[in-house]
Amino acid sequence: MPKYTIGIDFGSLSARALVVDVADGRELASHVCAYPHAVMDERLPSGKKLKPDWALQHPQDYLDCMAGAIRGALQKAGVSAADVIGLGIDFTACTMIATKADGTPLCFLPEFEDNPHAYIKLWKHHAAQDQANRLNAVAQQRGEAFLARYGGKISSEWLFPKIWQTLEEAPEVYDAADRFMETADWIIWQLTGNERRNSCTAGYKAMWHMRDGYPSDAFFKALDPRLEHVVDEKLSRAIYPIGSKAGEVTAQAAERFGLRPGIAVAVANVDAHVSLPAVGVTDAGKLLMIMGTSTCHILVGTQEKLVPGMCGVVQDGVLPGFLGYEAGQSCVGDHFDWFVSNCVPESYELQAREKGVNIHQLLTEKAAQLKAGESGLLALDWWNGNRSVLVDVDLTGMMLGMTLLTRSEEIYRALIEATAFGTRKIIENFIANGVPIDALYACGGIAEKNAMLMQIYADVTGYEIKIARSAQSPALGSAMFGAVVAGSENGGYDTIAQAAAAMGGVKETVYRPNSQEHAVYNQLYAEYERLHDYFGRGENDVMKRLKQLRKSN
Amino acid sequence: MPKYTIGIDFGSLSARALVVDVADGRELASHVCAYPHAVMDERLPSGKKLKPDWALQHPQDYLDCMAGAIRGALQKAGVSAADVIGLGIDFTACTMIATKADGTPLCFLPEFEDNPHAYIKLWKHHAAQDQANRLNAVAQQRGEAFLARYGGKISSEWLFPKIWQTLEEAPEVYDAADRFMETADWIIWQLTGNERRNSCTAGYKAMWHMRDGYPSDAFFKALDPRLEHVVDEKLSRAIYPIGSKAGEVTAQAAERFGLRPGIAVAVANVDAHVSLPAVGVTDAGKLLMIMGTSTCHILVGTQEKLVPGMCGVVQDGVLPGFLGYEAGQSCVGDHFDWFVSNCVPESYELQAREKGVNIHQLLTEKAAQLKAGESGLLALDWWNGNRSVLVDVDLTGMMLGMTLLTRSEEIYRALIEATAFGTRKIIENFIANGVPIDALYACGGIAEKNAMLMQIYADVTGYEIKIARSAQSPALGSAMFGAVVAGSENGGYDTIAQAAAAMGGVKETVYRPNSQEHAVYNQLYAEYERLHDYFGRGENDVMKRLKQLRKSN
Repeated sequence: MPKYTIGIDFGSLSARALVVDVADGRELASHVCAYPHAVMDERLPSGKKLKPDWALQHPQDYLDCMAGAIRGALQKAGVSAADVIGLGIDFTACTMIATKADGTPLCFLPEFEDNPHAYIKLWKHHAAQDQANRLNAVAQQRGEAFLARYGGKISSEWLFPKIWQTLEEAPEVYDAADRFMETADWIIWQLTGNERRNSCTAGYKAMWHMRDGYPSDAFFKALDPRLEHVVDEKLSRAIYPIGSKAGEVTAQAAERFGLRPGIAVAVANVDAHVSLPAVGVTDAGKLLMIMGTSTCHILVGTQEKLVPGMCGVVQDGVLPGFLGYEAGQSCVGDHFDWFVSNCVPESYELQAREKGVNIHQLLTEKAAQLKAGESGLLALDWWNGNRSVLVDVDLTGMMLGMTLLTRSEEIYRALIEATAFGTRKIIENFIANGVPIDALYACGGIAEKNAMLMQIYADVTGYEIKIARSAQSPALGSAMFGAVVAGSENGGYDTIAQAAAAMGGVKETVYRPNSQEHAVYNQLYAEYERLHDYFGRGENDVMKRLKQLRKSN
Repeated sequence: MPKYTIGIDFGSLSARALVVDVADGRELASHVCAYPHAVMDERLPSGKKLKPDWALQHPQDYLDCMAGAIRGALQKAGVSAADVIGLGIDFTACTMIATKADGTPLCFLPEFEDNPHAYIKLWKHHAAQDQANRLNAVAQQRGEAFLARYGGKISSEWLFPKIWQTLEEAPEVYDAADRFMETADWIIWQLTGNERRNSCTAGYKAMWHMRDGYPSDAFFKALDPRLEHVVDEKLSRAIYPIGSKAGEVTAQAAERFGLRPGIAVAVANVDAHVSLPAVGVTDAGKLLMIMGTSTCHILVGTQEKLVPGMCGVVQDGVLPGFLGYEAGQSCVGDHFDWFVSNCVPESYELQAREKGVNIHQLLTEKAAQLKAGESGLLALDWWNGNRSVLVDVDLTGMMLGMTLLTRSEEIYRALIEATAFGTRKIIENFIANGVPIDALYACGGIAEKNAMLMQIYADVTGYEIKIARSAQSPALGSAMFGAVVAGSENGGYDTIAQAAAAMGGVKETVYRPNSQEHAVYNQLYAEYERLHDYFGRGENDVMKRLKQLRKSN
């Protein structure tokens, strides 16, 4: 009798449930449900206006979409909930929710429904930059050891800047909150009745360390006396490793979400991190790029190395038994979408329509005719700041080399190349700091669809690149963790390595570097590196001064 | 009985004749005639392919268009050639023609009709860069004093690089040429039968100096032994000052061009230089910007100062009795046209059509809503290299500050601002080197049409800017010189100052700097200057290396 697990991937705009055959990873069906409120970055449901840089979500959307996605996927797959043995979820992070002690989100309470701070602060909520800056300054001043595990800087996207912003701007919300937590863990709580904070988000987004725990109360007191006991008052010191069981689906949850009571549920995970086993990788030295609007780089190693400019290193943060490393590029597909929306001339749109292709395809066809170095253009891929290795949201984009003969597809290709240079920078930074990388893997929409881009990445980095077999790697990875927590006795697996070997894998297509193109890109990369350091490491802070001037306008 | 003069402005794509009332500068009518061969930058008339960077013209086009433009203008004006007392012309420069001793262009000879070097090398023919580089190196090595009069560098656009390229690549053309000359002077020769080389182009484009003459034979020999006697063999040491009479229209020319024999003809002039008296300026310290696809800056002074990076200083080069200074920006309107052709999204085109405005107007409306510094963008206006003050065609464009929120009109405005910063750099460079500037004037299509741009120029430079009364300043200036060579005894004037006072002038509109905007632009200009020097003065030659890489592709 075949057994199934469900993986649920909560993205920025929708939730996707995937039903997978545990035996071989075959994907029977998936169903996507878009969040009714999407991202609230202009107004609350009440119409109340939000300030710039805010990005909120509504918890009801997750619950409703989870129910819809699970029911839809099971129905399409023709699978009964009775044959589902396990379930895993992955989520965006840090996506923070404030709740009462029983798990009720504060925004569900009438007194807070018009208070922006009572809603969920999505990962890309950037309004806590001020708090992040001050947190970094205090940590540096105090010589806090945790800083080095995060490449030297805590991001404004992470948990404590978001908590601190809440305290400073809405102390009434801070006081009313019994819990600040990753929404991922809140979902698990809704499914199992157990509050189980996962080691991945605790490690990467909340400065937690397996040996050292959270930063000290003294550190939090130095930020603000009211924060001294924030961990004990609002969080929990109990952290559950990735791959462990959070509990089982409760009767109430089974009814609400179309499941069966007793299904094993894994502790929550993060979309990027959960994808590594989905490509079949369960050992050190293999970097996976999860490529979409942004790119996340995931890698495990056997030793804890402190790598400047990475996003974090966390024991058991990705795979049990390994140090999990994360780095990121905050703007990848977003560059191309920006370009297509704002810079492509009408004549190209007409051509695309005549040929019956979309504009990305047309640009790709044209750009594919070019060789490395042929456009004479070079860009810095910082339209949305730089996450790794500079960790600086105030950096902005740069392009040079334009002439009166520069064409649209040349700019498009230069943007692609810039993101590839950014990836190479991350790879070289890991290697230079003692974390070996011997193979590249990619998954996500871009890896799936854009062969030209992947070839450029191979040519720029000099690595072969293998592509995930699944078009929905995070959901597959989550389903694999569902199979692990079900256990072999119930038809699942005992380890993620076993699950990955049976259920994960890559496509036959491999992108191999062209040596001629690679040689030219080596020259271009040297130029990129020099400008990267000139604009990014303080030699000329013009980008920050312009941003400041812009704000003061 | 009213008297008239004709000014003929030979542009890059067409010739314009203007009939002017000598009494008050009233413009009765003008007629434009487009060159049938336009700019030949891909093929000769025979179909023969041209290499990159070439730009040729056909001498027959000038003759035919001059005839058509004069006849058309006189007819529209209802003026008889009998009432025309003088004629002046202005031309692009250096636009070089190779002829036989009788003035026959070499490309008219059957044996040369398929030889690109026998055609007219237009000012923007850029294929002699290699010769220009070597000429500059030799001049520097020999410590040639003339270099300093041209800001330290001879441009590839000028006469001797073009002659040398002809010698090296087509020695048979060089040998067959009895004359290498500015096409402007060749036109005067066709009108009057007199070969009269004018002081303006000799000074600005052919390294001639009123006191020192041409560079020495020894210098030319050092370039190439075959060039030792180039001046005596192919040019002429007789140079005629601007404002002097070249002769009178011959009977043959009168018939060919629809004129009257005996009309006084001024020595030829350059389009930019001839415009200064057209705005009524006949004394020192008043900078005129002739703004079109590129911008030329013309100014007269009372002392010869050596200004690094200017295009040249020539005694009597602009107005008799003054030192004429020239500087230039090789890409102004061309930036905006490039942008509009290559980077404006379809949605903007649709909006423009709905509103019934052209796309420049739509972008201008949107960009006018922005304040200085609001976009956070900064650009270097080098899409076509930098003429002043860096004198370097191998520089390319740069823009930084882009984010995912950057919009089309912000980029458009940043390009406009970049050209304004380039102008400010030129102004400050003149002042710093002892050439005072106390007022700004502008003429040309952009000055005429784009009030937002002119306001930005005022805000960036901190100067009031006055605009030429005439929409066709070069032709009006030429007509004024025609009135001067006719002389007061024939109903004209005795000096250009008298002619300018009666016939020239500005509009009532004056663009005055806004002090708030100026203060912000001072900050942005400081950033511009720093990047200008970083990329333009050798600290990081990335633009040149990319261009090299591009060529080697």
